[in-house]
Order: sequence, then structure tokens, then C-alpha cells
Amino acid sequence: MAKRGLFITFEGTEGSGKTTQAELLAEWLQRRDPVLVREPGGTELSEQIRDVLLYKGLDIDAEAEMYLFMAARRQLIAEVITPALAHGQVVIADRYHDSTLAYQGGGRGVPTVWPSTFPHPDITFLLEGPVEAGLGRHEGAGKSKDRMERESIEFHRKVAEAYGRLAAADPKRFVRLDATGSRDKIHLEVRDRLEPLLEGMMD
Amino acid sequence: MAKRGLFITFEGTEGSGKTTQAELLAEWLQRRDPVLVREPGGTELSEQIRDVLLYKGLDIDAEAEMYLFMAARRQLIAEVITPALAHGQVVIADRYHDSTLAYQGGGRGVPTVWPSTFPHPDITFLLEGPVEAGLGRHEGAGKSKDRMERESIEFHRKVAEAYGRLAAADPKRFVRLDATGSRDKIHLEVRDRLEPLLEGMMD
Repeated sequence: MAKRGLFITFEGTEGSGKTTQAELLAEWLQRRDPVLVREPGGTELSEQIRDVLLYKGLDIDAEAEMYLFMAARRQLIAEVITPALAHGQVVIADRYHDSTLAYQGGGRGVPTVWPSTFPHPDITFLLEGPVEAGLGRHEGAGKSKDRMERESIEFHRKVAEAYGRLAAADPKRFVRLDATGSRDKIHLEVRDRLEPLLEGMMD
Repeated sequence: MAKRGLFITFEGTEGSGKTTQAELLAEWLQRRDPVLVREPGGTELSEQIRDVLLYKGLDIDAEAEMYLFMAARRQLIAEVITPALAHGQVVIADRYHDSTLAYQGGGRGVPTVWPSTFPHPDITFLLEGPVEAGLGRHEGAGKSKDRMERESIEFHRKVAEAYGRLAAADPKRFVRLDATGSRDKIHLEVRDRLEPLLEGMMD
């Protein structure tokens, strides 16, 4: 094991700008040939699983849904993430297992674990901002939100709180970023935090 | 919670006669209107998952496969098993989570757990016999079994050993039965072991 890559993940609620930041980072690291993965996706199995998750009319139990996401994630780890890290590459993931802990665990109350076979990220950028702004659909809204809408906001608040607890419990891995900043400002913060880690990698 | 059903599972390696015994038992208990479930199956989600597992050409990681089985099982629990038990019914399962512990855990070396949300069977009948007889394809075989066949036997031996360890660790739940006995003899043993439990149920 002469080389060891760098495993970077982006987390946050809907509309927090994770995807934009993951892409900006991949662009900045272009000469290192980074691997950018986005969940659920990236393997043939996960495409099949995505079809099941979207199969119309299926009322999927929250915990069953979690295992489907974990099946897709495990396949992505085995096919893509572990081999890339073993080859010393930088892997950038737009969502990873913290999403399950926050969404299925914090949001839906499903008991969650971090499987011993899921590699831990070296660094996780958590983009935090007001949930309503992220959902981007309550500007100028009147007082008559329907029940589903209120539930949805409540759900996303629970997810955001769960992310906050995860970050507080593992401050060495998590970097909390203000998602309300400009995309360039956030990108520069990401670069600042990564530079020491990138310098430590063997070329 | 005035009533509580009875949850009975059958486990064993391929060809051990589990399915026959589960069906004989369901027939014997007919007047109690038992629910007979067979894994993976029994829900629309699990049909979709079965399609993914059988989707041609997919090389599925052993742990990803485990999560797919667990997704199907969790949906079966939520849709069928838990409601039936809450209504005081007898549920008979042809395979349940011990299969994952034995096959993916013992057979393939994947780390396994029993999720806190998966109800424990009240009683588990483990049908044990020689693995080769169960696989039913080595009678009169010469010495030139190919590598896959040898691997397969080796795999099934590991599964049988894992079942033995599970039974030894939980002798209150497991009833070990000699699968080489006649189907009627085994069925009578099953009935003998169940009668006290059935008498204890409210009608």
C-alpha cells in the first residue's frame, strides 16, 4: 500500500449547493484526475435500484428504502470508491452515508449504523443554511400551506438538525460551511481546508 | 395489545425440505388461518428486488446483495408479518433473517447484524442434513468435480456450520431437526414442539 487516495464528501439538505461545490472542486482538482460520484448512481446496480425506488405506486417502508440506498452505496464502494482510493486517487462524493444517518435516521427515525465495511471520508463538507431557503418554495407564501408542505419542512428541519449533531460529534472530519455565502466564497473555503490534505498526498 | 400471534420460521440449506415442512404446517394449522410467507417474495417491492437480483450480467457485491435481501425482508415485515402478528395470527416463514446470517454472514463473510426492527421468531425449525445430499447432485459423481462445484459445496458447508452456531447460541428459539428423516416424521416433530405454544395462544 504505497499510495492512499483522499476521500472527500459533500453533505447538506436539498438546495444547499452541495452539487455545485462538488463540481467546482472536481474542476479545480482536474490535473489530479479526481473521481466524482453522485448518489444514488454510478453503477449498473444502482441504476436498477433507482428504477425500483421510482417504480410508480410502490409505498416503500422507510427502513426498506434505507437498505436500498445502502445496497447502491455498497456497490459504489466496491466498484468505484475503494479501487480509486487504493490507486491513490481523489474521490469526491456528492452525498454518502451521512445522508442515510441524517435523512432515514434523523428525518424518519429509522435506526441507523455506519457499517464497518463503508470507508470513512477523510473530510466532509457540510453545507448549512435555512431549510426553507434551500427548498426554495416559500418565498412570499401565504399562511395556508397544506399539511404535506408543513410536514415536509418539518422533515427537512429534522434532517438539518441531524446533520448538525453528526458534525458536532465528529469535528475532526466535518467542516461546517455557511451555505448562504456566494458559491465562490464557499469554494475558496473548501480549497483552504483541503490544501494541507492535498499537500500530504504522495504524487 | 389483547392478542399476540405466533411467529414460526423454517431454516436450512438448499434441499433440506424447509418448504415442504412449512407447507405441511400451514395445512395442519388451516383452521387458524395462518399466513405463509416465502422469501424473497410476498410484496410488490420484493418482486422488483428479485428482478434486480436476477438482472442478467450484474455482478453484485455480496454485501450489496445482503442489503437487497434486507430491503425485501423489511418490506415484508412492515406489510405482512407485523400486521398479522398484531392481529393474533400464526405467521410461518420459509426463510427469514437467519438465512442472511448464515448465507451472507457465514457463507460469504459479510459482517451481519440482527436489526432491532426485525421481529424475532418465537420458534425456528432448523433442518439439518448432509449438504451434498441436499444439493442432490453428487450421487455417483466421479473424482473430477470442477472448481465451481467444489466451491459451491464448500460454500454450503460454511452455511450449514453457521446455522449450527446460530442454533447453539440460541437453543431456546431453535429446534434442530434431522432433515434425513421422512417428511411425516419431521412434520410430527414440528407439531409436537408447537403444541404447547399453540395452546398458550388466545383464540
